[in-house]
Amino acid sequence: MSDPIKYVLDETRIPKAWYNIVADLPTPPPPVLHPGTLQPIGPGDLAPLFPMSLILQEVSAEREIEIPTPVRDIYRQWRPSPLFRARRFEQALDTPAKIYFKYEGVSPAGSHKPNSSIAQAFYNKEAGVKRLTTETGAGQWGSSLALAGSFFGLEVDIFMVRVSYNQKPYRRALMETYGARCVASPSNETASGRAILAQRPDHPGSLGIAISEAVEVAAQRDDTKYALGSVLNHVLLHQTVIGLEAIEQFDMAGDYPDVILGCAGGGSNFAGIAFPFLGKSLRGGPKPRIVAVEPAACPSITRGKYAYDFGDTAHLTPLTKMHTLGSTFTPPGFHAGGLRYHGMARLVSHCAELGLIEGLAVPQLACFEAGVQFARSEGIVPAPESNHAVCAVIQEALRCKAEGKAETILFSLSGHGHFDMQAYTDYFAGQLVDQSYDESELAMALAGLPSVS
Amino acid sequence: MSDPIKYVLDETRIPKAWYNIVADLPTPPPPVLHPGTLQPIGPGDLAPLFPMSLILQEVSAEREIEIPTPVRDIYRQWRPSPLFRARRFEQALDTPAKIYFKYEGVSPAGSHKPNSSIAQAFYNKEAGVKRLTTETGAGQWGSSLALAGSFFGLEVDIFMVRVSYNQKPYRRALMETYGARCVASPSNETASGRAILAQRPDHPGSLGIAISEAVEVAAQRDDTKYALGSVLNHVLLHQTVIGLEAIEQFDMAGDYPDVILGCAGGGSNFAGIAFPFLGKSLRGGPKPRIVAVEPAACPSITRGKYAYDFGDTAHLTPLTKMHTLGSTFTPPGFHAGGLRYHGMARLVSHCAELGLIEGLAVPQLACFEAGVQFARSEGIVPAPESNHAVCAVIQEALRCKAEGKAETILFSLSGHGHFDMQAYTDYFAGQLVDQSYDESELAMALAGLPSVS
Repeated sequence: MSDPIKYVLDETRIPKAWYNIVADLPTPPPPVLHPGTLQPIGPGDLAPLFPMSLILQEVSAEREIEIPTPVRDIYRQWRPSPLFRARRFEQALDTPAKIYFKYEGVSPAGSHKPNSSIAQAFYNKEAGVKRLTTETGAGQWGSSLALAGSFFGLEVDIFMVRVSYNQKPYRRALMETYGARCVASPSNETASGRAILAQRPDHPGSLGIAISEAVEVAAQRDDTKYALGSVLNHVLLHQTVIGLEAIEQFDMAGDYPDVILGCAGGGSNFAGIAFPFLGKSLRGGPKPRIVAVEPAACPSITRGKYAYDFGDTAHLTPLTKMHTLGSTFTPPGFHAGGLRYHGMARLVSHCAELGLIEGLAVPQLACFEAGVQFARSEGIVPAPESNHAVCAVIQEALRCKAEGKAETILFSLSGHGHFDMQAYTDYFAGQLVDQSYDESELAMALAGLPSVS
Repeated sequence: MSDPIKYVLDETRIPKAWYNIVADLPTPPPPVLHPGTLQPIGPGDLAPLFPMSLILQEVSAEREIEIPTPVRDIYRQWRPSPLFRARRFEQALDTPAKIYFKYEGVSPAGSHKPNSSIAQAFYNKEAGVKRLTTETGAGQWGSSLALAGSFFGLEVDIFMVRVSYNQKPYRRALMETYGARCVASPSNETASGRAILAQRPDHPGSLGIAISEAVEVAAQRDDTKYALGSVLNHVLLHQTVIGLEAIEQFDMAGDYPDVILGCAGGGSNFAGIAFPFLGKSLRGGPKPRIVAVEPAACPSITRGKYAYDFGDTAHLTPLTKMHTLGSTFTPPGFHAGGLRYHGMARLVSHCAELGLIEGLAVPQLACFEAGVQFARSEGIVPAPESNHAVCAVIQEALRCKAEGKAETILFSLSGHGHFDMQAYTDYFAGQLVDQSYDESELAMALAGLPSVS
């Protein structure tokens, strides 16, 4: 046989601790503020929404946080996930670059999201919680929390952004197969949903709105907590198993990345692959370029403002300093529903401000073209979100070719597109376009940012 | 951590040879007959449809047939596939039985089918073939051949059974993403398709009809060959990597199956898991019970006749002695499209006649109920075909409970149901029923069997 194409670690090498980048940052990120007092929030402020163990992770500055055994036991079903060398894709691109991808589509729900959903369900169960509410865009997070709920015996209620609810019936079916309840958002089940529908009955929804609805429901019942699929420190923390494993797999391969790429919506997949490498870099190790790839139609890092803003549309959440398009901004209904979020994770935004990472925005059609080329080379059909990374990888590989450089490129293939095939059908039928947001709506949303500095 | 739940072999342990059960059978299966002369066919008779290397495998009695390096190189992407111990499922069933499953859904196309499609594409490419035609039921085979075509640069034309074509648009999209062309069968592209449509314009199609169409097209062009996804000896041969790996994985586990189950349509998944164990048994090893699980609505082993019959509806194929419902029998349009075939593989049928294996028929609704229970326990949503095995496993596990026996049960989870979620949606909506075939149609189809003995 030829050289390895797959770097596999045995299950004893699943990381024993998550990695917290806060411990290695040159400056701490700006504090999260209470929306009423504008003072930094304390753990107690978050207690209605999250169990204390997750709140402590949210505010922790410890470098390593132990992964509980029951969580690792479930991780063992699909972790360590494989690191692949994409040789056929390299050949198709005729590039001297070496392209590796860490494949998170091997989880039962088909994406990286269970890395956090399993952990969140575990801590909630431990705290005596009976029911979780959440939002979902494309449905990757919703189905992952549904999966975790079925493993831990928790009820799960999911507010799914309406445009995705309609685009992705199979994703909904998956959540229901796992026993969760899935509602199109904005819905009539919450005051925030009803307020939006009153203004615009055909509202396509957004992650910001779905978050408002899920938070509102969770805050009303003692036995119910809220679970967020990205953005928050503890979610990014859970995802670092991706990069931690990849570092060990690069040891096996005797190689190290020059460039690391991940698609970024709320930032958890991106941080998952990038932060462990960035941490090594901050501690004096090699310094790869690190690129967060976002949709041109919802470009929070490349076009947003670094400012305090709400995480949701109804302004029920604390204020976070982040790259934001404004919490009232509604992105167009493009197919990468997991990237339709107005803001970016506080930690990712802070790293961008510090110049530790770059942002890159790519348009929808080029992403699908990239995804099809990748599928025909490697056999794996990427999720529309992941196609953003693939698209950027092609740019990097062609740059390497033009410059005659054999750089090592690593990207996170965050999930497969099995539940998103309608998007591919639409793409082949010529029905997809490069949607753009309304510039005046963006300007208005940015003008409406809270005046906090 | 607790005991292992996943038995993983490294890629050096992908089998180096496929296993041919013919070498170990106490009597050889009855010969395949030429439909004109009724004499045993020779390799030359099959040459219009298959490359000589596959024909030689079809007629081989060698115990081991070497797997070419380029095929193993592609297998390495997902093989060895994992063997899982389904501990949460055992707990949910409250059974003393130990339940293991070999998971073939890890292939890029999501089922066991690429084990053969990759091999078939390799040999065809080597023989200078430019285009392959094939049939597909649920689309698992079609998408797997499309995948193989994209890897080897072959055009692929797929006749997809119309009822599945309509039920499973995502499967179609997958084939197109891999660059194949997919046509609903019966179609107007062939004489056999047109003849069927003339009689019944809304004909739901069947695997037998789709085979006729694919064979007809392949026979017309020199640069085009035909590829079959099950039934034939060489297809079953390629699938034996499943059982060969499982034997090594049971060595790791320090265990051995008492019962082995697989769903059976044409028989390739079933033979893939069963034959290597059966071979050991025939050579004096332990003797597990081996059960082929089929749909109650298309029960070739349990209700069919063991007789010579055609493999297709238009009678373009040779005659094979097998368990058959009659080549003119059209099964009802239930959701496990991969099991809607009137016949059973010649080798599987022969083993059933010899009493080496059992048949078991299970109804559709119990299968979906089983699949949902499995998904909620293990996180993996099985394909509707695989649900037949899960349903039978539950019966076995409950028998073990009733008898107080801690038997070891192994089944092949042939594929995931990501492209079949509409079936789950229909199941939850109460829209599925236990379809049955028309007894008089079956009687007529059996009465019409060729009078050859």
